[in-house]
Amino acid sequence: MKSKKAELWEKYLLKTQRDDVISFASGRPSLEVYQFSLKKIKKSIVKIAREDISQIVDYSSVDGIKILKTTLINKYRQEGVPLKEKNIIITSGSQQALDIFFKSILKPQDKILIANENYIGLEKCLKNLHVKVLNLNKNIEETTDEELNQLFKKEKIKLFYLACDFSNPTGLTLNLKKRKEIIKKAKKYRFEVLEDQVYRDLVYHPQDQLPSLKKLHPGVNFIGSASKIIAPGLRIGWLIVNENNFKEAYEQKRASDLQTSFLNQKIIADFMKNNHEFQKHLKKLRRSYQEKMEILLSSLQKSMSKEFSWNQPRGGFFVWIEGPKSLDSRIFFEKALKIGVGVIPGFIFNYRKPQYNTFRLSISALPKNQIQEGVERISQALQNL
Amino acid sequence: MKSKKAELWEKYLLKTQRDDVISFASGRPSLEVYQFSLKKIKKSIVKIAREDISQIVDYSSVDGIKILKTTLINKYRQEGVPLKEKNIIITSGSQQALDIFFKSILKPQDKILIANENYIGLEKCLKNLHVKVLNLNKNIEETTDEELNQLFKKEKIKLFYLACDFSNPTGLTLNLKKRKEIIKKAKKYRFEVLEDQVYRDLVYHPQDQLPSLKKLHPGVNFIGSASKIIAPGLRIGWLIVNENNFKEAYEQKRASDLQTSFLNQKIIADFMKNNHEFQKHLKKLRRSYQEKMEILLSSLQKSMSKEFSWNQPRGGFFVWIEGPKSLDSRIFFEKALKIGVGVIPGFIFNYRKPQYNTFRLSISALPKNQIQEGVERISQALQNL
Repeated sequence: MKSKKAELWEKYLLKTQRDDVISFASGRPSLEVYQFSLKKIKKSIVKIAREDISQIVDYSSVDGIKILKTTLINKYRQEGVPLKEKNIIITSGSQQALDIFFKSILKPQDKILIANENYIGLEKCLKNLHVKVLNLNKNIEETTDEELNQLFKKEKIKLFYLACDFSNPTGLTLNLKKRKEIIKKAKKYRFEVLEDQVYRDLVYHPQDQLPSLKKLHPGVNFIGSASKIIAPGLRIGWLIVNENNFKEAYEQKRASDLQTSFLNQKIIADFMKNNHEFQKHLKKLRRSYQEKMEILLSSLQKSMSKEFSWNQPRGGFFVWIEGPKSLDSRIFFEKALKIGVGVIPGFIFNYRKPQYNTFRLSISALPKNQIQEGVERISQALQNL
Repeated sequence: MKSKKAELWEKYLLKTQRDDVISFASGRPSLEVYQFSLKKIKKSIVKIAREDISQIVDYSSVDGIKILKTTLINKYRQEGVPLKEKNIIITSGSQQALDIFFKSILKPQDKILIANENYIGLEKCLKNLHVKVLNLNKNIEETTDEELNQLFKKEKIKLFYLACDFSNPTGLTLNLKKRKEIIKKAKKYRFEVLEDQVYRDLVYHPQDQLPSLKKLHPGVNFIGSASKIIAPGLRIGWLIVNENNFKEAYEQKRASDLQTSFLNQKIIADFMKNNHEFQKHLKKLRRSYQEKMEILLSSLQKSMSKEFSWNQPRGGFFVWIEGPKSLDSRIFFEKALKIGVGVIPGFIFNYRKPQYNTFRLSISALPKNQIQEGVERISQALQNL
């Protein structure tokens, strides 16, 4: 945990932002994706400005406005996850949900378990809290039940943070057996679970969606966000906690920024509250990402040499590429940039020791017609190493 | 620091929210005050929705959008305070500015100096950081230069947080001599200064405004906010740091919530960017608060017994009342509530030992025509103790 991941990430990302670069670096949604929501959001903002201006300018509540809470309760009820208002804290994006939950659960020297490849935004929040960060040696799927037991017996873990569905950076899905094992362990070894569901709604085939950890056990806490499914610029996320954790999370939300803007909450509630419309929107979004992902996967299949392997994401927009041990993704990054293609080296996502033979590809911001050309350039850069 | 101030404050505040209660408890702006800005904000939101929708939905920058930074640079230049973009972090309200600055400056066991009567929102942020909170025994004005020297010689202070102008809860103004002394000490004993300027623009007579600490010394950090001068619901504040502190504050902002919503920043920039218009707005706002404050002060003069004393605020909306040692503001609060008047007992603002013979009055949310009647009820409740 010595590296400053967010700074490093920003440095790499900025380098790829050149007109002549086909960039698989950014995880921001594409304009194409926004087209599904721009008009609707615009109309909604104008309506809210006209009808609710006195609520827009005034203070509201620490934990979020009722209409958005009700909307979320309805959303999760359809997944078989019953929630009450007293489980929900509306946050200024999911980054704040993470920060608030960590602050409300963790004390100095407490132990938190996270996957080795992980979201860079965890690092600073955890450093602030002076906690001990433990990592699984391998991906969660590859860790055996026996290894998990040994770990939990040896270490008194306070919190297990994990994402099960197409998460940043790997795009992996955790299988059902492993989900159930983790819930068993949580009960047996009495640790808290924070499930990151930020990418979960981007599943390509909803009928195959696996149950969330939250659905498997009501004590699980989780975070969600409007950023990947509606619009990141509005900065709306949510932290769902079990009853025991509500009071402290509420106080941490108050200490962080008093409350989230009414206007932004209302825009998101407007967008989601008609569930039929919202499901139609999600369908379009999923199809768009799925189409791009299929192009990416078939292009990789065509262009990449046999020493490289990658996963077949079932949702979202990330693919994790593993190369031969000899690959140094830092050198590869520079070579790739020279011939006009951007990736993010995998080591910046590593919380244990850095692995230099991996990189992350994202198709979120890329137009469909650039993906194949981009992969060809990647392949070419790899051959010239 | 054992009490949970924010919870206690919420408890008291909620009790006063009854239709039959004239409440001096809340510090939220009155609808009357909003009337100065509602129409303008509404128009601005509609315009932004139509013109900048793609920026509204997309990610923007960690430290804030350029147009708002430029607007703030212009605002402070007129006060003789030169700023660069690299001094400014736009935050989600001033509570977040506090939290971010504290996180970026303070390590566990570091010592922070604050006034004894202070904003309740400090408590949780400081508790999170495991720092040592030192208090001045008296108000800063009453603390002699010699006492200050002794304190700074004895204790290695890392940060002095203070508000000089009409601050919550006392409404006091720090005189120029003391401001200069503090700057001298900061240089001599090498501590950081964070000046809370959230109420500063609410000065009744701008020509008599004293220079800010920031103006007296460019190394001072300060926070400002749109909440007291435009609208709290939009959750826009700003943290102004010296160059040495920018990088860490930037990283803490990112870890807190990635960035503040473009839409909200743009609304505030729109409101402030025409300085002539903005100054006209401030004039109306100041006059409104001043009128109400004059009614409050003359009513107190008429109705209160000689054992009570209070200050003559030169801006803002708070007055701090000190009663005889025998007064217990907790009991007084209940008696007052019974006959229909709300106050906030002063002890909840105390960071050193609680003093029960004080209470805070705010005229921000009260209509003019209720103030005199409210003070008469206070006087009556005090007589019946």
